[in-house]
Amino acid sequence: MKKIGYLGPAGTNAEAAAIKYSAGTSAELVPFETIFDVIAACDAGSVEEGVVPIENSSEGSVSITLDLLASKDTKVKICQEIDIPINHCLLVRAGTALADIKDVISHPQGLAQCQHYIRKNLGSVTTHAATSTAAAAESIAAGKFPHGAAIAAKILAEKLGLVILAEKINDFESVTRFVVLSKKDHAPTGNDKTSVVLSAKKDKPGVLFAILGELAKRSINLTKIESRPRKKMLGDYIFFIDLQGHRKDTKISAAIKSMGQKASFFKLLGSYPEA
Amino acid sequence: MKKIGYLGPAGTNAEAAAIKYSAGTSAELVPFETIFDVIAACDAGSVEEGVVPIENSSEGSVSITLDLLASKDTKVKICQEIDIPINHCLLVRAGTALADIKDVISHPQGLAQCQHYIRKNLGSVTTHAATSTAAAAESIAAGKFPHGAAIAAKILAEKLGLVILAEKINDFESVTRFVVLSKKDHAPTGNDKTSVVLSAKKDKPGVLFAILGELAKRSINLTKIESRPRKKMLGDYIFFIDLQGHRKDTKISAAIKSMGQKASFFKLLGSYPEA
Repeated sequence: MKKIGYLGPAGTNAEAAAIKYSAGTSAELVPFETIFDVIAACDAGSVEEGVVPIENSSEGSVSITLDLLASKDTKVKICQEIDIPINHCLLVRAGTALADIKDVISHPQGLAQCQHYIRKNLGSVTTHAATSTAAAAESIAAGKFPHGAAIAAKILAEKLGLVILAEKINDFESVTRFVVLSKKDHAPTGNDKTSVVLSAKKDKPGVLFAILGELAKRSINLTKIESRPRKKMLGDYIFFIDLQGHRKDTKISAAIKSMGQKASFFKLLGSYPEA
Repeated sequence: MKKIGYLGPAGTNAEAAAIKYSAGTSAELVPFETIFDVIAACDAGSVEEGVVPIENSSEGSVSITLDLLASKDTKVKICQEIDIPINHCLLVRAGTALADIKDVISHPQGLAQCQHYIRKNLGSVTTHAATSTAAAAESIAAGKFPHGAAIAAKILAEKLGLVILAEKINDFESVTRFVVLSKKDHAPTGNDKTSVVLSAKKDKPGVLFAILGELAKRSINLTKIESRPRKKMLGDYIFFIDLQGHRKDTKISAAIKSMGQKASFFKLLGSYPEA
């Protein structure tokens, strides 16, 4: 049976993304403790595919995904993207009402994303951190906080027998983007995206502009751009760019070739269907 | 006395940034619970200035800073940037040796940033989450974990009477960038940066390129670019751009004017000395 690794524990949005991705197939979903472990297992072949957050996660730390993908040591490609809307729920044990809540527990990012809701509806509760939203829900299920509520995903209510007191309590609507990593990227579908990472010298104004010009002159749409400082070299920057189209399309292929020639470092992260 | 707000609690890197910024002046440093609170207090005038993380924080959540700065409701400007190198230390109570450690506690981002170190040097310890690295250190000082160590900033060792077992245990060298917010940005110093946020329609390839062209044709250097999806409108993107120069410089002023005309939304976040 195909094995798909994901950033665990079970019950967080990464599992929801892995379930969505593997729907209708018979794959074994394997939780890993860290993003590094998922990518390493994928690179080593102990799992065929791996699901990790790449943008705006409720569990923090997506910069680790970007840094690992940019590394020359990482061989896996992006073969799919999966968007999961953030839906933080207020989970309690049966019998706990909104007015009873004295403690709220979640991943700090979850607490931060619901701070308006907490203040408006729960008054002066004490907030507690957990290593994940799933661990927060488990501590409520285990009775660690008799007057407690967890901020976590809906599926945990069913799994752990908790009651959903409120849904979508996050202050802003938002989506976490996950990517599926594999030894090979995806074949063209006609509605694809391609991710690349490249480096341009900070002290050469216009290099990035010239690189983007390779996209503009071919009317290739850019759907994401993000610069990150390179480790130990604050003067150098790397850029993550998502563009519309597949690397096998003639104009994308030509653009990639020209961009690669203009950049001091260039790595193709893969082509995959648009979410 | 001038009041400077910062993202608390005391003992995290945001306080270190506020201390570095206010060195040699007599300012009162006021911790706030959330990034939202710091910016709101600054906008309302209850503090003169506010210090919040904007890039690569050990305490997560910098996307909240970007979203709040992009909001039309936020009036404050960036008047300074401050870089603080991440230096995670292993803090214990006197008498605890490396071999005694059974529990490691930190903000989940701190745990993630030191995972290699933990595995290599501490073996099979149990990790616990705290709402901040400072809260983690306090729980060790309070004796909550008799065989515990906190991953937190060095200054907490002195404050809380803890022993530093190891320094710079973060797996990668990295810097957290903070910004100081104020009603007014900074006067020109000759070595400045300007931050702007703008929006371009996703379905118009080339708009961003045309906007960046206003920088390239004037040889203005871009030091950061980051796209973020706009809330509720996945088709629309906003871009955060840092460029070298002050908004009062003739060529920067002309570039900003032309960029503003090409963007569907444009907001100047301020000019300030380069870190």
